Amino acid sequence: MPMISLAELQRRIDRGDLSADAAIAQSLEAIGAQDETIGAFVCHDPRARAAGAGPLRGIAVGIKDIIDTADFPTEMGSSIYRGWQPRADASVVEMLRRAGATIIGKTTTTAFASRDPTATLNPRNHGHTPGGSSSGSAAAVAAGMIPLALGTQTGGSVIRPASFCGVAAIKPSYRLLPTVGVKCYSWMLDTVGLFAAGVEDLAHGLSAMTNRPELLGDAAKTTPRIGLVMQEFAGAPEGSSGQALRIAVAAVERAGASVRTLAMPEIVAEAWRIHPVVQEFEAHQALAWEYRTHHDEIPPLMREKLDENVGIKPATYDEARAIANRARRALAKSFDDVDVLLTFSAPGAAPKGLASTGDARFNRLWTLMGVPCVNIPADVTDGGLPVGVQIIAGFGDDARALSAARFVEEALARR
Amino acid sequence: MPMISLAELQRRIDRGDLSADAAIAQSLEAIGAQDETIGAFVCHDPRARAAGAGPLRGIAVGIKDIIDTADFPTEMGSSIYRGWQPRADASVVEMLRRAGATIIGKTTTTAFASRDPTATLNPRNHGHTPGGSSSGSAAAVAAGMIPLALGTQTGGSVIRPASFCGVAAIKPSYRLLPTVGVKCYSWMLDTVGLFAAGVEDLAHGLSAMTNRPELLGDAAKTTPRIGLVMQEFAGAPEGSSGQALRIAVAAVERAGASVRTLAMPEIVAEAWRIHPVVQEFEAHQALAWEYRTHHDEIPPLMREKLDENVGIKPATYDEARAIANRARRALAKSFDDVDVLLTFSAPGAAPKGLASTGDARFNRLWTLMGVPCVNIPADVTDGGLPVGVQIIAGFGDDARALSAARFVEEALARR
Repeated sequence: MPMISLAELQRRIDRGDLSADAAIAQSLEAIGAQDETIGAFVCHDPRARAAGAGPLRGIAVGIKDIIDTADFPTEMGSSIYRGWQPRADASVVEMLRRAGATIIGKTTTTAFASRDPTATLNPRNHGHTPGGSSSGSAAAVAAGMIPLALGTQTGGSVIRPASFCGVAAIKPSYRLLPTVGVKCYSWMLDTVGLFAAGVEDLAHGLSAMTNRPELLGDAAKTTPRIGLVMQEFAGAPEGSSGQALRIAVAAVERAGASVRTLAMPEIVAEAWRIHPVVQEFEAHQALAWEYRTHHDEIPPLMREKLDENVGIKPATYDEARAIANRARRALAKSFDDVDVLLTFSAPGAAPKGLASTGDARFNRLWTLMGVPCVNIPADVTDGGLPVGVQIIAGFGDDARALSAARFVEEALARR
Repeated sequence: MPMISLAELQRRIDRGDLSADAAIAQSLEAIGAQDETIGAFVCHDPRARAAGAGPLRGIAVGIKDIIDTADFPTEMGSSIYRGWQPRADASVVEMLRRAGATIIGKTTTTAFASRDPTATLNPRNHGHTPGGSSSGSAAAVAAGMIPLALGTQTGGSVIRPASFCGVAAIKPSYRLLPTVGVKCYSWMLDTVGLFAAGVEDLAHGLSAMTNRPELLGDAAKTTPRIGLVMQEFAGAPEGSSGQALRIAVAAVERAGASVRTLAMPEIVAEAWRIHPVVQEFEAHQALAWEYRTHHDEIPPLMREKLDENVGIKPATYDEARAIANRARRALAKSFDDVDVLLTFSAPGAAPKGLASTGDARFNRLWTLMGVPCVNIPADVTDGGLPVGVQIIAGFGDDARALSAARFVEEALARR
């Protein structure tokens, strides 16, 4: 089933070619037809209806199940929260409602957005993981069930599953979207992001949620100056990701963009190395109650990681934060001569089987830097699986990240 | 009833002069004797017992009722959350438990830590407000019911009630204490703080919670170089606060400290002015569900403030954040020549009656700057009411804020 374009749906609703309720009904039908196989939803509302007004009326949205909803349980992917019903909606859910969107259901998440896989299948190839931790959100959009979904990224949990499932996604600048009502793993890293069919769809969704028209990027499209970043500090990519990047570079150069290889300053590589210190130190604070009272109910990969990281010293964490601050300033200078960076979205295509959700090594630096990242599906087939490339802009420059990603997307479509 | 010193209690327990359970029983007795009059607690556990180990065993702690507790309801000071039982403890509650403290109950808070007064009385003079929003935490410590309490500050909700009630308090550096599980009003401002009888007690409490021995400040006590800040941008203080500051300056100079008047850079004054933009823009996101679904249940002062601030433009908020960032850098330079700043804790003594919790105008800048602030009760009587002074250090320098505050406290005690 083809993906549903949010922007196209808006245009049809605006023109009167489709009623907002019919758009919602289309998503309900697609969920009914596909989700028994894919397993992207924890629960959904089969009687969902469209709102009467707002730029996102008629848009059915799936919400990762670590994000609080007043109308659906929020189970955090864990038996510890089985049947848990929050009192209030998270801020991002309210932003969607205010824009007229319909919250159609909750999407699967690895427990506490960590590493233990869900049973969700990759819609592109059922023998592969959809990635994690925002597994259900990526899969539901990829399968054509819904035009928009929310996920979160602490390491690579938005961009990586988007790459694996062949959908567009944005991890915006740190705190562009509030994390109030989102289960915390690491407060310095957790970032709410969006999944949609294409980059224009992301821009329409994010702009409507935040009431920031500049994110639509309808103004003069400029040809971006692109810095190519190989992230050598994160190890080498697999062949498919290397190929995706080469194809993207060739396509944007043909479209007139300048591409120069950029070496990251050493302090930025250092920030990549200390990301896990920040993440695991904060996780031990954020999930202290779960760790103390329900240790054995925490699933094995996450539990092992927490057990390994008991007792990180505050001084080690303080040093990691200082490195991150210095790296943010150094990275900002990289944008003096280029508009955006282009790099891998993931080490390769989605791994086979459901034992692992994949590796965040090409994502975690950018999460720690707080900069906006966009995944653009690249048309590289590796056993029928998509592979994405990632566009990154400076902190707060989400509009530029989206417009450059649109440029890359169009260049790839023309090749 | 005299206040209970946490450090003194620890020493008596360590020496075996007092059992940890007897220390908890003493707090329960004091709550039983006084709280019907003062009204500092929303609820407490009359069967509370001491833990067997940990530096805070035998220490009864009151938790502001916007902070999640798994064993007590968390009502946010609002009928919207009447009887609400969170699933997990907030991170700061777990930090206390890990250190061996006993969570003895929940203390009163203005609704959502905003401006509408609680019925809590000021233990120093029942005809006056204890201040807010952490009303119950300040009052419970001041009345000698408990040796330690947690509050939160978004404008001045820790330092101001401490000043009004004559107790020591620290608002630590931003995110030294996690806000996971704390009801959010403004994520850039909300800061968890501690109330105790004296500065040494704060240091022992904060050090045990964070596992940071450097906060004990037992190392060589140096004589601080002090910058006197009059905060002219915030208006003039009342006579009592002016007098408290003069007394503190005279006392520390007599004790050998250097004091020089420091003018704040213009960008810092500008940050003072835009604090409300940050606070109210974020409040509309953080409390969007409550505002949409329970508007008329939000109490009047808070509702009026929210109604006034509907529709702050994202660009106005972005500009305010940029000002705050520039001001943080400028303020950091102020610490090149002084160790700490000394200024007012509040405009004056606690206002008469319970109609207002007082004014945060001498606090809000420092909350936005994220720097550690300590209230030291100054022995100035204004109608039998205490007035505090405030010591401020650079970001992350909580140890220095505490040791300088200890110096001021001792200088005041000797005069």
